[in-house]
Amino acid sequence: VLNPKIAVIAGDGIGKEVMPEGIRALEAANKKFNIGMQFDHFDFASCDYYLKHGKMMPDNWFETLMQYDAIFFGAVGMPEILPDHISLWGSLIQFRRGFDQYVNLRPVRLLPGVPCPLANRKPGDIDFFVVRENTEGEYSSVGGKMFPDTDREFVIQESVFTRHGVDRILKYAYDLAQSRPKKHLTSATKSNGIAITMPYWDERVEAMAKQYGDVKSDKYHIDILTAQFVMNPDRFDVVVASNLFGDILSDLGPACTGTIAVAPSGSINPEGKFPSLFEPVHGSAPDIYGKMIANPIGQIWSGSMMLDHLGYPEAGLAVFTAIEKVLAAGKTALTPDLGGTAKTDDLGKAIAAAI
Amino acid sequence: VLNPKIAVIAGDGIGKEVMPEGIRALEAANKKFNIGMQFDHFDFASCDYYLKHGKMMPDNWFETLMQYDAIFFGAVGMPEILPDHISLWGSLIQFRRGFDQYVNLRPVRLLPGVPCPLANRKPGDIDFFVVRENTEGEYSSVGGKMFPDTDREFVIQESVFTRHGVDRILKYAYDLAQSRPKKHLTSATKSNGIAITMPYWDERVEAMAKQYGDVKSDKYHIDILTAQFVMNPDRFDVVVASNLFGDILSDLGPACTGTIAVAPSGSINPEGKFPSLFEPVHGSAPDIYGKMIANPIGQIWSGSMMLDHLGYPEAGLAVFTAIEKVLAAGKTALTPDLGGTAKTDDLGKAIAAAI
Ligand SMILES: CC(C)[C@H](C(=O)O)[C@@H](O)C(=O)O
Ligand SMILES: CC(C)[C@H](C(=O)O)[C@@H](O)C(=O)O
Repeated sequence: VLNPKIAVIAGDGIGKEVMPEGIRALEAANKKFNIGMQFDHFDFASCDYYLKHGKMMPDNWFETLMQYDAIFFGAVGMPEILPDHISLWGSLIQFRRGFDQYVNLRPVRLLPGVPCPLANRKPGDIDFFVVRENTEGEYSSVGGKMFPDTDREFVIQESVFTRHGVDRILKYAYDLAQSRPKKHLTSATKSNGIAITMPYWDERVEAMAKQYGDVKSDKYHIDILTAQFVMNPDRFDVVVASNLFGDILSDLGPACTGTIAVAPSGSINPEGKFPSLFEPVHGSAPDIYGKMIANPIGQIWSGSMMLDHLGYPEAGLAVFTAIEKVLAAGKTALTPDLGGTAKTDDLGKAIAAAI
Repeated sequence: VLNPKIAVIAGDGIGKEVMPEGIRALEAANKKFNIGMQFDHFDFASCDYYLKHGKMMPDNWFETLMQYDAIFFGAVGMPEILPDHISLWGSLIQFRRGFDQYVNLRPVRLLPGVPCPLANRKPGDIDFFVVRENTEGEYSSVGGKMFPDTDREFVIQESVFTRHGVDRILKYAYDLAQSRPKKHLTSATKSNGIAITMPYWDERVEAMAKQYGDVKSDKYHIDILTAQFVMNPDRFDVVVASNLFGDILSDLGPACTGTIAVAPSGSINPEGKFPSLFEPVHGSAPDIYGKMIANPIGQIWSGSMMLDHLGYPEAGLAVFTAIEKVLAAGKTALTPDLGGTAKTDDLGKAIAAAI
């Protein structure tokens, strides 16, 4: 994309603290690689906005954001003010559905300088992607409550897996696996317990596998797969999963590599019909908001993914390499979660300077 | 229970190898504490049985097993022969539903001599229970497929949470938390994403919490909770979870403490109207079956839980202490997964001798 237009939404909590650092890094890459990227800031998709307007977003959010090539997102949610299922379903989940961002792509990589909770693992040992289905599955809006306020009360919620939805995420994951040296795909299932939808998932994986003879596939039930993430994280290359399982694995993976504070994600519409969204995996973290101790690397790395997506892989790599360099250089420049004493903006400036 | 009658079902794969060691340990405790426990062996609930009879269990399985005070179970499943969703739904899941074993209780403990994949953790640091709902939730039998073999094909499956089902598992978990020194309960939720059933779960937790003023409660979304298991496993005391989330957490927890091979579980009907079932967390592991290298500790520890349940806590403790003693004594007596060279029965005999 020439002169990409970026919609910037900082959102809530530490989203507002890490976003300026994300922009700082992107501006540095913008200059260095002469990209001509432009940023417009929006205050909606935040609980502040909800408090003023009684809704998370203006009615024309779709038309407004459609004019952009990508959305650069911070974090949303302030559970003390508004229940998460209202703030999230009124913003992020709307984007994922409305803009058909059916791929949620989350790299899991052990980086230098990040303390790893697993014993005997070093940078380079862990390097894989979680490819998460992002629009259907367990995150459905169909269901409800019956016999309210009685002993017979119950709630039901449908999980919905369509051939359309399953096949396209599998295709994306297989293409990604095929492009990598290991050519290895792992499918997350639970067909032994969730015995209607998950056997269907397995069936579609088997069908897709036939079209990718050069990719080695295996599958694990989600329970033992989480155990494998801890015991043998070096085993994985591309892990494809449903909406819920992908959500779990893409928090657990980063935890196994040290901290979810550095983990990035992209909610991607691969066809480019709609804008894709890039955001850190971490949330708004109200408990540390206001102290300027939040780690901005998740935001900055998300910016690197966005540059890749927009067709500037060199610039994306420059941002990622700068992150690695500053992490490797050591503690003083790092935020407290990494054992350093730096503030959010100190670390952001160090990375921008390294670009 | 006086002279408890135990139904023994070894099942498939390594279930058949570890079960004799479970019985050996129980016989040792039987003698030492003069319990008068009797064992009857059954060959159903196995894929071998299925091959002979075209079904996993005889039609009178319910009446047959109702005559026992507990079921001591090995493992079931041979995916090469029979898809898991047929073998499991035809056996274990039938027991859980038919005998209303609504509590699945799974201790997570870091034991001496077990290599821990987490850095800087020592025995005693990790010691908590996962209390899993075992009869409803995401493991439902309601749903199906529409438009088969067309592009419009889709499958749906209902998650079902009843007040009856949710409240009783929460009550069990709160009672357990109240009986422990830390008096701390963690609820696994995902109300920000699974926005119909999970907010209901949260609501019931809040209502139950009011009746346990002395128990400190908190909740985590399942994604970040799995991350916390890796980063801060010492934080937990009693973790209560839905059927699926409990399934995941009770594999992940044991993985964080070294190996799921030693982890036990009880599928319990607390009122004692129906027999409860005790089995290792690991499965039938067809890949190592036949080598006699399977670790029998999960089976033996499950026997210890069964003794507790039957009203013989002293005997249960003796079995557990023997496990700890043999583990601490070191490698030679241990199976290969623990770095030793012992066979399944060597380790079993060592533990029985220590009782
Ligand atoms: C085998 C399978 C159906 C079962 C479950 O998911 O409940 C197992 O994983 C367990 O945890 O007991
Ligand atoms: C906030 C929540 C709804 C969201 C999700 O579950 O998808 C988050 O955990 C994520 O992973 O992006």
